[in-house]
Amino acid sequence: MRSPQHELPLLAALQACGQRPHSAFYTPGHKQGQGASEPLTALLGRAALQVDLPELPDLDNLFAPEGVIQQAQELAADAFGAERTWFLANGSTCGIEAAILATCLPGEKIILPRNAHQSAIAALILSGAVPIFVNPDYDARWEIAHSIAPAMVAQALEQHPDAKAVLMVYPTYYGVAGDVQAIAHLAHQHGIPLLVDEAHGAHFAFHPELPIAALRAGADLVVQSTHKVLGAMTQAAMLHVQGNRISRDRISRALQLVQSTSPSYVLLASLDAARQQMALNGHELMTQSLSLADTARTQLQQIPGLAVLDETLASSSPGFHALDRTRLTVDVTNLGLTGFAADEILHEQLGVTAELPSLHHLTFIISLGNTPQDIDRLIHAFCTLAKADSEFKIQNSKFKTQNSATPQPPSPSPQHLTPRDAFLAPSESVAIAQAPGRISAALVCPYPPGIPVLLPGEVITAEAVSYLQAVVALGGIVTGCGDALQTLEVVKYSATRLD
Amino acid sequence: MRSPQHELPLLAALQACGQRPHSAFYTPGHKQGQGASEPLTALLGRAALQVDLPELPDLDNLFAPEGVIQQAQELAADAFGAERTWFLANGSTCGIEAAILATCLPGEKIILPRNAHQSAIAALILSGAVPIFVNPDYDARWEIAHSIAPAMVAQALEQHPDAKAVLMVYPTYYGVAGDVQAIAHLAHQHGIPLLVDEAHGAHFAFHPELPIAALRAGADLVVQSTHKVLGAMTQAAMLHVQGNRISRDRISRALQLVQSTSPSYVLLASLDAARQQMALNGHELMTQSLSLADTARTQLQQIPGLAVLDETLASSSPGFHALDRTRLTVDVTNLGLTGFAADEILHEQLGVTAELPSLHHLTFIISLGNTPQDIDRLIHAFCTLAKADSEFKIQNSKFKTQNSATPQPPSPSPQHLTPRDAFLAPSESVAIAQAPGRISAALVCPYPPGIPVLLPGEVITAEAVSYLQAVVALGGIVTGCGDALQTLEVVKYSATRLD
Repeated sequence: MRSPQHELPLLAALQACGQRPHSAFYTPGHKQGQGASEPLTALLGRAALQVDLPELPDLDNLFAPEGVIQQAQELAADAFGAERTWFLANGSTCGIEAAILATCLPGEKIILPRNAHQSAIAALILSGAVPIFVNPDYDARWEIAHSIAPAMVAQALEQHPDAKAVLMVYPTYYGVAGDVQAIAHLAHQHGIPLLVDEAHGAHFAFHPELPIAALRAGADLVVQSTHKVLGAMTQAAMLHVQGNRISRDRISRALQLVQSTSPSYVLLASLDAARQQMALNGHELMTQSLSLADTARTQLQQIPGLAVLDETLASSSPGFHALDRTRLTVDVTNLGLTGFAADEILHEQLGVTAELPSLHHLTFIISLGNTPQDIDRLIHAFCTLAKADSEFKIQNSKFKTQNSATPQPPSPSPQHLTPRDAFLAPSESVAIAQAPGRISAALVCPYPPGIPVLLPGEVITAEAVSYLQAVVALGGIVTGCGDALQTLEVVKYSATRLD
Repeated sequence: MRSPQHELPLLAALQACGQRPHSAFYTPGHKQGQGASEPLTALLGRAALQVDLPELPDLDNLFAPEGVIQQAQELAADAFGAERTWFLANGSTCGIEAAILATCLPGEKIILPRNAHQSAIAALILSGAVPIFVNPDYDARWEIAHSIAPAMVAQALEQHPDAKAVLMVYPTYYGVAGDVQAIAHLAHQHGIPLLVDEAHGAHFAFHPELPIAALRAGADLVVQSTHKVLGAMTQAAMLHVQGNRISRDRISRALQLVQSTSPSYVLLASLDAARQQMALNGHELMTQSLSLADTARTQLQQIPGLAVLDETLASSSPGFHALDRTRLTVDVTNLGLTGFAADEILHEQLGVTAELPSLHHLTFIISLGNTPQDIDRLIHAFCTLAKADSEFKIQNSKFKTQNSATPQPPSPSPQHLTPRDAFLAPSESVAIAQAPGRISAALVCPYPPGIPVLLPGEVITAEAVSYLQAVVALGGIVTGCGDALQTLEVVKYSATRLD
């Protein structure tokens, strides 16, 4: 018997509606492309416009699914190992927000990594939950924050037995996977759910040589950016749930708050396609991706001056349990270039575009969309870049890495207001020199290492300001501040207490 | 000199990136369609996948625009008559949410129509703002709620001088435009901004025979579903601001909370295209749409048994100032059919699909995407439907309209908790008979007339329950309840006070 995973209930229904001859007196205004402008039709093609349809009777309703969306979500739950799955048209962002809104009431505590994605901070602001931050394991050699360590989570759970949930990022942007099984076990011992931001790990369920999928490891709720590594369109994601620690009803209700009431069927149908592709061919596709990535890794490691993040670190780091080998982080410091400079050269002159440049390294995502030709070009580009006395090094001497010592991160700032209260309070912009002693209204994060120094509601210390300035002086970047760290957004004095 | 409105900064940059030969090691996983599954490629075409790109250096950043997105937004501001415009990838929903988050602190009051879109209720829940509801002008003959009347807004402003904003829906789903100029004037007399949900009115700025655009009438902040009547893709929208009553900074910060950090450039570029199309050809396109709609209106009015909502009502209704003639609402009661039944027959057998069926009527949207052939088919379909003893009336006798008197809407229920507190509180499902006296956790809305009877935080009265049951008995629909009004979601007793 043919597996039900061959079916494409949502995609097929959308295609049928798009091909059905009829006159459309509904939204969108372009009416299957009839009224789209010539430049838009040239950009996207007629096919995509023809299926840009609204919630027609045959197309079900994302917020009360009982037809093709429900069927597509059930197939996805089965393929990804969940009991229930929701399709998301507003990215993993809305999934993380719904996860926290559905598990923590205002004022309730949630344990989460200090380097959680900004969607988790947005979730704290929307929900009014109180964060209990755990510092991630930090690798000073690579200047990379890994996962939170189980021992740190255990300590936080002991100090805060009233916490309502634990959130972890699994894997990190760099493909580093923490010990999700141990952390799930700890959360469950305390009777609370583990929520997992698996935005970068939607492929894990499909190959044993990838880190274990969070659902398989016992996570209660998992959010995946199906677009990041699988075949869905950008902004399309999924939220998965299993077990009895999460109310399905509260998830459904929370998702209604953070998604458009006119969701794009182009995005939603791409989730159906991405699920079918992986359910039928996931193992083969991941075998290919792993093979391509392994080839690249081996070859790059042989180029003098390059270092590639690998699994040998796993034994010594409590936040580095396994590595997603399809992700390559390449240190270029010994080429005499910053990661930012190398990125610019690769992108503009050598036909290779990375995902994420940082001060010392660049990260490359190898997915089911990459070909052996891509890998050849990547290796060739790095060979060119690494040639002694290459024109690039000379051209880009302005980018030369400074070899000063990395500054010491500041001690955590005291939290004076919840992120929600601070974010929603009247705020003002002050010069950096005037900032110490004030309460931050913004999330301020230096790269490297990508661990926020200030969150909304935290007191700005002189130590934090010095650290941020040191990162900038070394060539790093600070987000969440004005005019390259000239100003910081702070809560007005009149609003330091909102209640 | 060629107008700058010919330019397509964002669309052109996306097209150039899509055509540039390079190897992609970034998200999305399908890498310009290289790894997309065959069914997805067949559905959307290669072109759309090729430009499904992330925030590459040349493509700017939606949350800190300083390149092609900023340029595209500036052109849009100019075309729509705003001082500043934000592109939205999560629909008008996120625009309304940001508008309220940016203008009302938790506990602050906002004046808004009882029949505001559910995104406004979501905004109340996310922000913690306190709603001061104004009942919309109600047309008992058509069973349609129009706009709020200026006199009612004036009264609410006098009773609540501490209100921080007024929100109005302009036009309604039926194309009925209230007196936005008068309401803007009232809000400004009280020193507060007027926020306008102009989701269905993005075309108003481009033709003098359409109702006046809200920005032109003095609104401070306007949210438009650029996809609903113009040429953008579903889920793409815009937020416009003018004047000094709205903090641009708070809007930008609030929008970061309610949109994906991986916004779709396919959606964003379609906004650039829709703006260019209207800036260059808007008047001509709207002349065509008006002409098509006028033809349809005239012909439909001549078919015995049909009535079409028209502007003659404007003189007698304080919430009906003008009509968007491109929207046709057709009453089918005298054909012996409900609007739901007529919709089903039109869609399934006559090749015509409406936007919105209701108990007595259906609403059709005529936009720049419609052709004279569409209008012919619409008229022909209604002629067939209206034929005496047509097979449809016999087939669908089960749908026959009941001619009982429309029930009287209940008096407003007292608000015991804010929408936020009620929505976030622990809740339970109770049988409808046990519901009176409890606090609603949900938004419960009967259609017709589309005016919510219960909002989160309001006490459920016996009168409200009887009214909802009467609407269902007449063939109407109630949203926000379980199992066809068998159950209602209520706040648990333990949580009737959260503070």
